[in-house]
Amino acid sequence: MRLTLGGAMGAVAHKAKLYEQVAERLADAISAGTLQPGDRLPSVRQLSLRERVSISTVLQAYLHLESLGLIETRPQSGHYVRRRERPRLAEPQVSRPASSATAVTVSGLVASVYRSMGDARMVKLGAASPAPELLPVRRLYRELNALSRESRDRSIQYDALPGCPELRQQLARRSMDWGCSLAADDFITTFGASEAIHLCLLAVARPGDTIAIESPAYYGTLQSIEALGLRALEIPCCPRNGMQMEALEAALTRRRIAAVLAVPSFSNPVGSCMPDVRRQRLVNLLDAHDVPLIEDDIYGDLHFGAERPRSCKAFDTRGNVLLCSSFSKTLAPGFRVGYVAPGRFRERVELLKFSTSVTTATVPQYAIARFLQNGGYDRHLRSLRRRLAAQVERMAEAVAEFFPEGTRVTRPSGGALLWVELPRQVDSLALSAKALEAGISIAPGPIFSARMDSYRHCFRLNCGHPWTPRIEAAMSTLGALARSLT
Amino acid sequence: MRLTLGGAMGAVAHKAKLYEQVAERLADAISAGTLQPGDRLPSVRQLSLRERVSISTVLQAYLHLESLGLIETRPQSGHYVRRRERPRLAEPQVSRPASSATAVTVSGLVASVYRSMGDARMVKLGAASPAPELLPVRRLYRELNALSRESRDRSIQYDALPGCPELRQQLARRSMDWGCSLAADDFITTFGASEAIHLCLLAVARPGDTIAIESPAYYGTLQSIEALGLRALEIPCCPRNGMQMEALEAALTRRRIAAVLAVPSFSNPVGSCMPDVRRQRLVNLLDAHDVPLIEDDIYGDLHFGAERPRSCKAFDTRGNVLLCSSFSKTLAPGFRVGYVAPGRFRERVELLKFSTSVTTATVPQYAIARFLQNGGYDRHLRSLRRRLAAQVERMAEAVAEFFPEGTRVTRPSGGALLWVELPRQVDSLALSAKALEAGISIAPGPIFSARMDSYRHCFRLNCGHPWTPRIEAAMSTLGALARSLT
Repeated sequence: MRLTLGGAMGAVAHKAKLYEQVAERLADAISAGTLQPGDRLPSVRQLSLRERVSISTVLQAYLHLESLGLIETRPQSGHYVRRRERPRLAEPQVSRPASSATAVTVSGLVASVYRSMGDARMVKLGAASPAPELLPVRRLYRELNALSRESRDRSIQYDALPGCPELRQQLARRSMDWGCSLAADDFITTFGASEAIHLCLLAVARPGDTIAIESPAYYGTLQSIEALGLRALEIPCCPRNGMQMEALEAALTRRRIAAVLAVPSFSNPVGSCMPDVRRQRLVNLLDAHDVPLIEDDIYGDLHFGAERPRSCKAFDTRGNVLLCSSFSKTLAPGFRVGYVAPGRFRERVELLKFSTSVTTATVPQYAIARFLQNGGYDRHLRSLRRRLAAQVERMAEAVAEFFPEGTRVTRPSGGALLWVELPRQVDSLALSAKALEAGISIAPGPIFSARMDSYRHCFRLNCGHPWTPRIEAAMSTLGALARSLT
Repeated sequence: MRLTLGGAMGAVAHKAKLYEQVAERLADAISAGTLQPGDRLPSVRQLSLRERVSISTVLQAYLHLESLGLIETRPQSGHYVRRRERPRLAEPQVSRPASSATAVTVSGLVASVYRSMGDARMVKLGAASPAPELLPVRRLYRELNALSRESRDRSIQYDALPGCPELRQQLARRSMDWGCSLAADDFITTFGASEAIHLCLLAVARPGDTIAIESPAYYGTLQSIEALGLRALEIPCCPRNGMQMEALEAALTRRRIAAVLAVPSFSNPVGSCMPDVRRQRLVNLLDAHDVPLIEDDIYGDLHFGAERPRSCKAFDTRGNVLLCSSFSKTLAPGFRVGYVAPGRFRERVELLKFSTSVTTATVPQYAIARFLQNGGYDRHLRSLRRRLAAQVERMAEAVAEFFPEGTRVTRPSGGALLWVELPRQVDSLALSAKALEAGISIAPGPIFSARMDSYRHCFRLNCGHPWTPRIEAAMSTLGALARSLT
């Protein structure tokens, strides 16, 4: 009886609130172009009549749209669709990393940077994490608390080795959205995508081997490569379309490469998204060279457009793609629940998982499995994507507004990151140091390359926070600091 | 108000129940020798008067002592201190592993073994895990559910990098019991002791390096060594006193050793416990050779005697000892909460932790931190130790009763494992295969050595389950199978 009731209440409670529904319809009209920048929105009374909701619900909806940066209030006048303050900045160009493989030595630098990223007093524009107000915290806790009725004894013990069966079943179901049709047994759960990638590197490479990566690349991946005594070969990347196939092909014919590690959907830091045709070519190319692909799909669910990009795994016919991802960017970074579908390396990855951490922790896995089972993840993703798209857009505008002339910025079609290219003479390490003094953390460019002398005039911005006066002030300060360094 | 009430109820709820208190006093009298094997216990009515408790409480206490294997009921006669059925078996002798370092190739064999260990239908005498009925499941869940009031938003986000500060503070406090006085900042939390050891190996060794280990050694550690492309040098061990210092010293002068990895307190699988004087010598010896010691203290809290063994870290003056442990054997294996105090390797281990799994999952860490803060861990440990001691004793008796002549078995002074040495001609891999067919999993000897040809006539028994007719039947079956193989 109690269970049934709990289920019914749950179903009601995770429906969107009324004001969110109203806001969503307006946001749709704005993104469809029905409402243009500068257009005046209906008055509060009009909208209240039209939508058959209370005045206070309309006010809440408008406040919500304002916090997303989609509309603005003009005193004594009404609500308007926000106008962009300036024309868009140019995008960064294709990267041109050195063409030789190199040992990686980012660790020391990363250490000093990420320590400051974790400082609670900072305005955190460094680490790539969504603000808790974007995450379904209450619902996750409802699932967590339900475990005490249902899986108490089970959750205390070591989990089954490949990971919670219910979660793997949900992953199998979701894999249709990625263009795959994987089975529960194709998955092994891990402590986030980080552990998944660490295990995949261990599975496919021996110390001294070369891993081809995007340039610039996520510093955590560079650190993993460094930790395992591997070498990194940075491949040129287009900030829109990702790793350049000609450059990769040339590298593959020139030298032995143990694996390619890529983030095809909304890469970290530049946010590029490989078109399907390029994904197909990548998979074919690596099949031909018998080189495995470690695919980091952690941002795949965060597309701003209508369609989720297919994963490279969708083009994999030989089990050559090791697909890694997690719920850290969409549900709960702190829960550390990720997974890998390691293709033909499954047995080896499973053994490595056992020796590295035995099994994945039960409780966070079970809570997320229940969340997926009980529905509402897709609805949450829709709302999260909309908010992230708005935040990324708003942050890009702030870069245009506050940063020195000649600054370029990416135009990602998903994820929550911006990559900013400052005028050549601006040193992002100096900028980072000054920003920290001002209580703002950023991720400076050099940590995104195995050679610490690259991307010195670039940095990465986290757009995971809703736009607030505090963020605006931080962006203004950052811009002024960057100007002072020109 | 609600919090205060919760706290007060908590304090009452985790006090021992009345029957447990009565049973504890009798158990103390038995272990002190006040009550001898064969002695008749007071009648139910006598004890009820003496202890001023109800008849039913006394009956419960007697049932409890019976389930621990400490007393037996003779129909129409009363309760008696259990008599050992046979004289103790001889112990295994000092191990004599080959004296050359070797690449490790246990993974394949371990895979087939541990898969069967996880099968829920098996009588699980293979994996080293405590039965859930020995663990404070309710209390852990009380702490877990309290998180929704107190740390919801915080727990959703990435944790601070070295790990939950409250947990590290509790570890610092507890380190006094280990003979250390560590500070919260000396610790990094990890996903179990396994991840701690994996990170330590990465921190102190390069691929191709040699790690000196106990022989026999825990197969998980062997797998880690294998995964990282390291070599293992097995050092002879005494089943009582652990790694032999002369052999280690000779090895250190003969070749370069990157690190020593040892389980000084109740080693896995033989349960040896290094005397203090040997620990001191080990630390001095390694200091002199500038070789780090990775100390796996996972069983340290499970001493059967009155005194907890000091950790080797207690003798460490130069930061040369990397102390690893977890709550997997005492609170909740499934929670995957462990830690490392890496001494002078702290910064490197912290970086490796970040690149391997970013941070440890929040929720299980926070629950365990609250458990330690709110008291009752020591009381739980006392009860757990008593039960494990009884179970180990009972299982050893069953080995003596059911196994072929010439069988030897260890006499550990802590932990929950027995190492059984069968007559030379019995192949434990064949025994394991036959046992699996009969629905019983064991851990066969060869997986405990880098050379898969060692310990073929040995196996490890998990004593984490309370003695029940089901376990007794399994031991009887195992014994018969072993006899059939002589």
